[in-house]
Amino acid sequence: MKLSSKNIETRLDTVYDAIVVGGGMGGLSAAIYLARYGLKCLVVEKGRGRSFWMQDTRNFLGQDPTVPGRDIIQHGTDQALHWGADFLRGFVESVTDEGETFAVNVKIGKKDDVGHSLRSKYVVAASGIMDNLPKLENMQNVYDYAGYTLHVCMICDGFDMWDQRAALIVNTEGQAHAAFVLNWFTPYISVFTHGLFEASVELKQKLAEHGYPLYEQPIVKFHGENHKLSGVELADGTLVEATTGLVGMGSHYHNEYLQGIELEYSGKNLVTNEMCQTSHDRIFALGDLKQGLNQVSVAVADGTLAATQIWRTIRRASEPRKWEANIKVPAQL
Amino acid sequence: MKLSSKNIETRLDTVYDAIVVGGGMGGLSAAIYLARYGLKCLVVEKGRGRSFWMQDTRNFLGQDPTVPGRDIIQHGTDQALHWGADFLRGFVESVTDEGETFAVNVKIGKKDDVGHSLRSKYVVAASGIMDNLPKLENMQNVYDYAGYTLHVCMICDGFDMWDQRAALIVNTEGQAHAAFVLNWFTPYISVFTHGLFEASVELKQKLAEHGYPLYEQPIVKFHGENHKLSGVELADGTLVEATTGLVGMGSHYHNEYLQGIELEYSGKNLVTNEMCQTSHDRIFALGDLKQGLNQVSVAVADGTLAATQIWRTIRRASEPRKWEANIKVPAQL
Repeated sequence: MKLSSKNIETRLDTVYDAIVVGGGMGGLSAAIYLARYGLKCLVVEKGRGRSFWMQDTRNFLGQDPTVPGRDIIQHGTDQALHWGADFLRGFVESVTDEGETFAVNVKIGKKDDVGHSLRSKYVVAASGIMDNLPKLENMQNVYDYAGYTLHVCMICDGFDMWDQRAALIVNTEGQAHAAFVLNWFTPYISVFTHGLFEASVELKQKLAEHGYPLYEQPIVKFHGENHKLSGVELADGTLVEATTGLVGMGSHYHNEYLQGIELEYSGKNLVTNEMCQTSHDRIFALGDLKQGLNQVSVAVADGTLAATQIWRTIRRASEPRKWEANIKVPAQL
Repeated sequence: MKLSSKNIETRLDTVYDAIVVGGGMGGLSAAIYLARYGLKCLVVEKGRGRSFWMQDTRNFLGQDPTVPGRDIIQHGTDQALHWGADFLRGFVESVTDEGETFAVNVKIGKKDDVGHSLRSKYVVAASGIMDNLPKLENMQNVYDYAGYTLHVCMICDGFDMWDQRAALIVNTEGQAHAAFVLNWFTPYISVFTHGLFEASVELKQKLAEHGYPLYEQPIVKFHGENHKLSGVELADGTLVEATTGLVGMGSHYHNEYLQGIELEYSGKNLVTNEMCQTSHDRIFALGDLKQGLNQVSVAVADGTLAATQIWRTIRRASEPRKWEANIKVPAQL
């Protein structure tokens, strides 16, 4: 059922089997499975996640490559509701482990100061990441290209950059080394630091050896039309030709609500086992929040695995359902 | 490109980066990724695999739950071709490890006695399994219900069996224990051995304690209409009411072509690492052939992982592409 501030009161006494934080590709897959296992689950989706911004979904089997992420999300949301999941547009502020259950504090709308405390046996962290983009005075100029010809994922979109003039925009020395992977798809790479760090002599030399120019001035404007990039303008007036771009500036991890709970991380990524279970046996993590490839197909499989493991555990701890009418007293055996 | 006996000669000198054995959910996902990594790949599909028989695809994000598996397969085949993969309707007879490459012997059509030897650096085993079904004199009577109301996968279709009269058809004592999982979805379970094994006293007692009747006579006919099961008729004339069924009779693994190569198995399943690599570092295994859940979403993610790992290895061993026009002689640095 669709929940909102108007009917959330009906769920304050519910103990969900699982609350899924994030209604993107992984979270919705988990919700569809959980619902079809007959488990009580709630998806809390804040809106405008990474896949919402995907203008096309190139690599996901069964989808046309021009399908935007938001269409798949809408379809999945409808499916999850259809099979019996609850769905709430809201923001998870915190998760507190109360032993047998979690208290999940959710704010609904910007004016919700206190929030609502919901309870669940399991938490599925599916809130993903958001790529950092270069900050320009006019951010609309960035959004005009991001997700179209200015990409954030080489695995997803490298093919579409093939042999093009590519701008690689990075904010650390480490990210700049993506040039030496991107060159699988195109050798015509210009590297931009956006003035955010000073490249080492070693990096400068390696780039020069490969013929990849390095621009250390801040970017002031992207040029192009109809979402098609044509160039990058720098603070000193330089205009660098680029028909495509890759932004490698790290990501924001939407995992603040887990900060009160001790969990094992590898860098920023949650460590999980083969069923997406974190080091806390009642918290699962999917997709981009955990280690592994940031791909739609992986997040969708993660949802399958987490939901199945939650079902197995709940099922094994449940009383078996007997066909009472058929049970014979021992003497009759 | 679509290949056939008419144009296969054009590929006899090709060394593919990867030959994907099986064009089901996993194999097609792998092919789409491989092609979009710019790698030369060939999918060999024998036809009529497990997902071809799926009359509906309940749990796969982004698909309507009534979509038959064959529609997704057709869509994925078109996509793989669109991105540049080769596709051949044929049967892989054998794979021989020649050191740097594999020789993959493929027969095209039933009259092809000798086969064609194709070569690749990597082999992706995505040929899946096929569920064993009860053998009746009139197999059409089985096919009328299999995939509709007579299921083979509890995770996929348990929800659709909820509180129904369910026939559980098994061929071993071990499989009969599925009753004690299926009872999550319905307690109205009748267990059928189809006369294939004799149930132990312990099993009989446990079933009786749960109220699940056991029928040890061979099945002679499924009753119902329009693919909707209504009952199971036994050799002794008994008619047992059942509006749904689950067949747990094991599966045939389509992996005969790998028999000449030493690989690590767990039971019948190939052991793989987190990137679907088998114990042979140039052979990958996807979906139902490997350990893990037999789910569409998992197979599709497996294709992503295997293709990505193959790309990484090939890329790392390749000469980097330089932007020659920009390379300065050291003195100018």
